[in-house]
Amino acid sequence: MALIVQKYGGTSMGSIDRIKNVAKRVKRWHDNGHQVVVVVSAMSGETNRLIDLARQISTQPDPREYDQMVSTGEQVSISLLAMAIKELGIGARSMTGRQVAIKTDNAHNKARIESIDDKNIREQLDAGNIVIVAGFQGIDEEGNATTLGRGGSDTTGVAIAAALGADECQIYTDVDGVYTTDPRVTSKAKKLEKITFEEMLEMASLGSKILQIRSVEFAGKYGVPLRVLSSFDENTDGSFDQEFQDNVGTLITIDEGDNMEQAIISGIAFNRDEAKILVRGVPDHPGIASAILSPIGRANIEIDMIVQNLSDHGTTDFTFTVNRTDLDKTLKVLNEEVKDEIGAKEILGNSEVVKVSLVGVGMRSHAGVASLMFQTLAENNINIQMISTSEIKVSVLIQDQHLEKAVKSLHTAFGLDREDGESKIAGL
Amino acid sequence: MALIVQKYGGTSMGSIDRIKNVAKRVKRWHDNGHQVVVVVSAMSGETNRLIDLARQISTQPDPREYDQMVSTGEQVSISLLAMAIKELGIGARSMTGRQVAIKTDNAHNKARIESIDDKNIREQLDAGNIVIVAGFQGIDEEGNATTLGRGGSDTTGVAIAAALGADECQIYTDVDGVYTTDPRVTSKAKKLEKITFEEMLEMASLGSKILQIRSVEFAGKYGVPLRVLSSFDENTDGSFDQEFQDNVGTLITIDEGDNMEQAIISGIAFNRDEAKILVRGVPDHPGIASAILSPIGRANIEIDMIVQNLSDHGTTDFTFTVNRTDLDKTLKVLNEEVKDEIGAKEILGNSEVVKVSLVGVGMRSHAGVASLMFQTLAENNINIQMISTSEIKVSVLIQDQHLEKAVKSLHTAFGLDREDGESKIAGL
Repeated sequence: MALIVQKYGGTSMGSIDRIKNVAKRVKRWHDNGHQVVVVVSAMSGETNRLIDLARQISTQPDPREYDQMVSTGEQVSISLLAMAIKELGIGARSMTGRQVAIKTDNAHNKARIESIDDKNIREQLDAGNIVIVAGFQGIDEEGNATTLGRGGSDTTGVAIAAALGADECQIYTDVDGVYTTDPRVTSKAKKLEKITFEEMLEMASLGSKILQIRSVEFAGKYGVPLRVLSSFDENTDGSFDQEFQDNVGTLITIDEGDNMEQAIISGIAFNRDEAKILVRGVPDHPGIASAILSPIGRANIEIDMIVQNLSDHGTTDFTFTVNRTDLDKTLKVLNEEVKDEIGAKEILGNSEVVKVSLVGVGMRSHAGVASLMFQTLAENNINIQMISTSEIKVSVLIQDQHLEKAVKSLHTAFGLDREDGESKIAGL
Repeated sequence: MALIVQKYGGTSMGSIDRIKNVAKRVKRWHDNGHQVVVVVSAMSGETNRLIDLARQISTQPDPREYDQMVSTGEQVSISLLAMAIKELGIGARSMTGRQVAIKTDNAHNKARIESIDDKNIREQLDAGNIVIVAGFQGIDEEGNATTLGRGGSDTTGVAIAAALGADECQIYTDVDGVYTTDPRVTSKAKKLEKITFEEMLEMASLGSKILQIRSVEFAGKYGVPLRVLSSFDENTDGSFDQEFQDNVGTLITIDEGDNMEQAIISGIAFNRDEAKILVRGVPDHPGIASAILSPIGRANIEIDMIVQNLSDHGTTDFTFTVNRTDLDKTLKVLNEEVKDEIGAKEILGNSEVVKVSLVGVGMRSHAGVASLMFQTLAENNINIQMISTSEIKVSVLIQDQHLEKAVKSLHTAFGLDREDGESKIAGL
């Protein structure tokens, strides 16, 4: 007998029929002798419907009231799923974040989980019930409803799994696992059986939308085995077949595997939401980076890549990237608070860029990844604008129009293609 | 400065525009220096939408889960109203039944309020905030969400007013007060300025749909002055005018008034939901009433009027009424469990009946009300099938097709017509 936490997103809970299918799936795990805790999101569309109501009243709805309102979406879906499971003759009990109790800080709309009491859940599990927990929500110290922000249900799932010491946290989505890269960009992308937390974290933060990044951090920190798998593998008549048995998705673990044959690169991520800012002709003296970046930090703008080039005239060029939606705001801050202050010649913004990254723990033991990457891009006439590296990642910023060509050529070059085609990496 | 509790139903909260109007109204009271607690229902249609979702899963949804789900309707509307009030620049704070805390028994779907802690509300009022409380809901001892059943928001309003010792509990509805009878039946119906709790209770239980009966009981028990008034008296541009000032609705109090001129009858209520059952030819011996009615009580069917006629052959006819929706169930119980047991000749059901009642505390000091009623009906060729009386009420069961004629003629006979026409009661 294992203790399994399953998380179903809004699409999996998107209609009464789908909720009934989730109930059937949960029943299978229960029938196989497992204890099951289910974490669910609001029915798809519901959260947006609520947000729309609030926006009709105020462009900036009060955060406390917003959370009080929007947290009802999950409260409805947990109740409906509990009813559906009970219809199948199994004991079930829904719990809101408050009823669990999931304690968070009081940062409304983007609260962080501080603690989870496992007592109430365990009591129900011990009584033979399936427990259905509302994702995305908690309460602060004063008992106000809080929400974790979009995608927060993943985080709830992992946090519940950690608090219970669950054997596995299964994230059911509309994709059947984590791929080497976005299959919409290259049909040669293939599903990964395993990936490490570190890699998944890089993949998630670099633009892979499958898992919410905080949930991966959480899972890594507490060593919760995480599995991404599809909730849409039943037959049209609602039954499950062999496919269900084989639906193992992608497992995300601490284990880096002992397979020497494993690929050096696990995947290629990309991020279309970047914008580049160039601060040109800055006098080169200590403190200049701080003078440029501090005002931006104060304006709550997150900075991603940073590069500083020394020029030969005693001045320097300073380049960095921000989220594309922050571009105008960043330029405004720089022009108003920074430009004259530091005596910069020019400030230029460019949103026609995209970041492409190779991710893989294999890099640690293999030199030459970056140089093969640069060589591949050069062969395809793709100019690199910025470079940034970490222990298990190499990122480059390129012009956005080259995205597809870059991903496809790198995918082939690093031996990730589905068909066993030849790969340049062989000789690395 | 007064402390006012205002309750707005689903229709008053039926759209974002209406919610904004409620916010404006609340602001007026606040601007006039009053402390205001607002109790609201779910937006109209919302509760039915949720119930419909549950019914798609189960014909008998689990009561706990049903309450967990359906209580979200009010949680949404309190948050939206709090946002709307804050948009007007006034402090506001929404509270669920749980946050108040409104403790109930654990009879899901029809829970009864056991206690209300006024601490959290007072804290917010003292801080200058308007407090918006979710109607219709509470929590049981174990922290499960409970609902009070349909119309329960009125009860919440009155209970909150009682707990706070409020100066007045104002129930805003889509009608502008309590009328002598349903204006749809006679255009001569007139609005009452005042009515006693006892009278209102009889009016409510006899079929007047304005106030939920339990809320009137509560108000009477705790002496909370209750006022019914319209929430639809603003101009089309959303402003309020003189009409708003004059919108005083109907006050329901303990005070029977010292006006000697007051009408003996306050109003005429009627109930179309009755069905009559005749158990014919029962041997007349002690215990027969209990033998007939106990099985019906066990089947959770409520009995309203009861009449027993002794016939001259040592047998008796036993007649009673139940809610029309319970007619088939009642006949089934009688035929299966009672008929042979007691040796009844025949059991007949009839749903083509209606109950008409005169209500008024004035009856206590005036004889002749019943006889004028019977005389008036006789003059109009309306046959009386059953009669039942209490201290401040006379009810008759008549054939349903005579309803309008009966109400109109009684309304005139007892001097309730809006125009100062002559009335037979003058000489009573």
